[in-house]
Amino acid sequence: MSSQFISFEGIDGSGKSTQMQLFAENLKKSGDEPILSREPGGSTGAEEIRKLLVEGDPDRWSAYTEILLFTAARRDHLERTILPNLDAGKIVITDRFADSTRVYQGVARNDLAQMVNALHDLMIAHDPNLTFIIDIDPKIALDRGLARQSGEDRFEDFGLEFQKSLRLGFIELSQKYSERCVLINGDGTTDQVAKRVWQAYEAHHL
Amino acid sequence: MSSQFISFEGIDGSGKSTQMQLFAENLKKSGDEPILSREPGGSTGAEEIRKLLVEGDPDRWSAYTEILLFTAARRDHLERTILPNLDAGKIVITDRFADSTRVYQGVARNDLAQMVNALHDLMIAHDPNLTFIIDIDPKIALDRGLARQSGEDRFEDFGLEFQKSLRLGFIELSQKYSERCVLINGDGTTDQVAKRVWQAYEAHHL
Repeated sequence: MSSQFISFEGIDGSGKSTQMQLFAENLKKSGDEPILSREPGGSTGAEEIRKLLVEGDPDRWSAYTEILLFTAARRDHLERTILPNLDAGKIVITDRFADSTRVYQGVARNDLAQMVNALHDLMIAHDPNLTFIIDIDPKIALDRGLARQSGEDRFEDFGLEFQKSLRLGFIELSQKYSERCVLINGDGTTDQVAKRVWQAYEAHHL
Repeated sequence: MSSQFISFEGIDGSGKSTQMQLFAENLKKSGDEPILSREPGGSTGAEEIRKLLVEGDPDRWSAYTEILLFTAARRDHLERTILPNLDAGKIVITDRFADSTRVYQGVARNDLAQMVNALHDLMIAHDPNLTFIIDIDPKIALDRGLARQSGEDRFEDFGLEFQKSLRLGFIELSQKYSERCVLINGDGTTDQVAKRVWQAYEAHHL
């Protein structure tokens, strides 16, 4: 099996992290040894930058500075974890990548979308071969408690309306980058959704 | 007096930090209340990012990641310290700004110069009104012990040849941005050099 760079994306509480784990287990059953990663973070340096982003007053960074810090962490993650493992022929799976910045920033500050893309092209210039976007109605995610299981309080901090906008952002992104993005229906049991991911993965490799 | 954004640049041991202090004292004698700052740092957030840059293994960041961290710190410095004080009509003086990134990166990795400028235009898009470049032969700086007084060991870490290249980089920069850059002869007593800075400042305002 040749190297692959795969990302899982979706709103908070979509179940994407759980689905990523189940997908990795399925890959292992097939004899692969996937490398699992996450953003922000995914390398020693990027995890240090992550602390600046997730700790302290959420308003302490401006949108511009925050995007620069995310991009610095992403660059480290790319150089130290993703590219070396791809070069070694591995499958690298990451919980969030640049699409999260595109969607979260695009929804929060639509006027910055062009800058976000220009910065990505200049400093990162890599995107996954395949991106699973776990799509779910934020109301369902909230009702079934997935939001709270995510270990972060952002879901309720952001509010339902913002999560609805994010969902729409991810759907639009899946259309814009349709050659690599697959929208997965995230409504159903964990096993049902995992089966959809695996089927989409196999279909992508036909 | 209207607001002014002034930077001091030069190689390690050039005496620029001392000259900045003396220049600020002269401004105070003239009735101004300058704001003194420095890079990397100059604001609460930027000082936190600075720690990532100056502590730990010098090789832990790649050139790309390091430039992104410098730019994140610069953006915070710009938004939280420089622009608010300029808006309030103050004179803001900083020990290093974007020119340091241009010169240090340009000398270390000439192939990245275009990226450094593109990133600056995209994310910072501000330069000082006036830049004093304290120019000195690195050999003289070393002999007279200024290098060691700078409080950092970078001078000897980098080596004399690299410092010579940096000096040349600053001279070239002063020619490229001649409308705002003034090259000051840094060879002489502290008072002699301070007098040259003040004369250049007054000439710039004629």
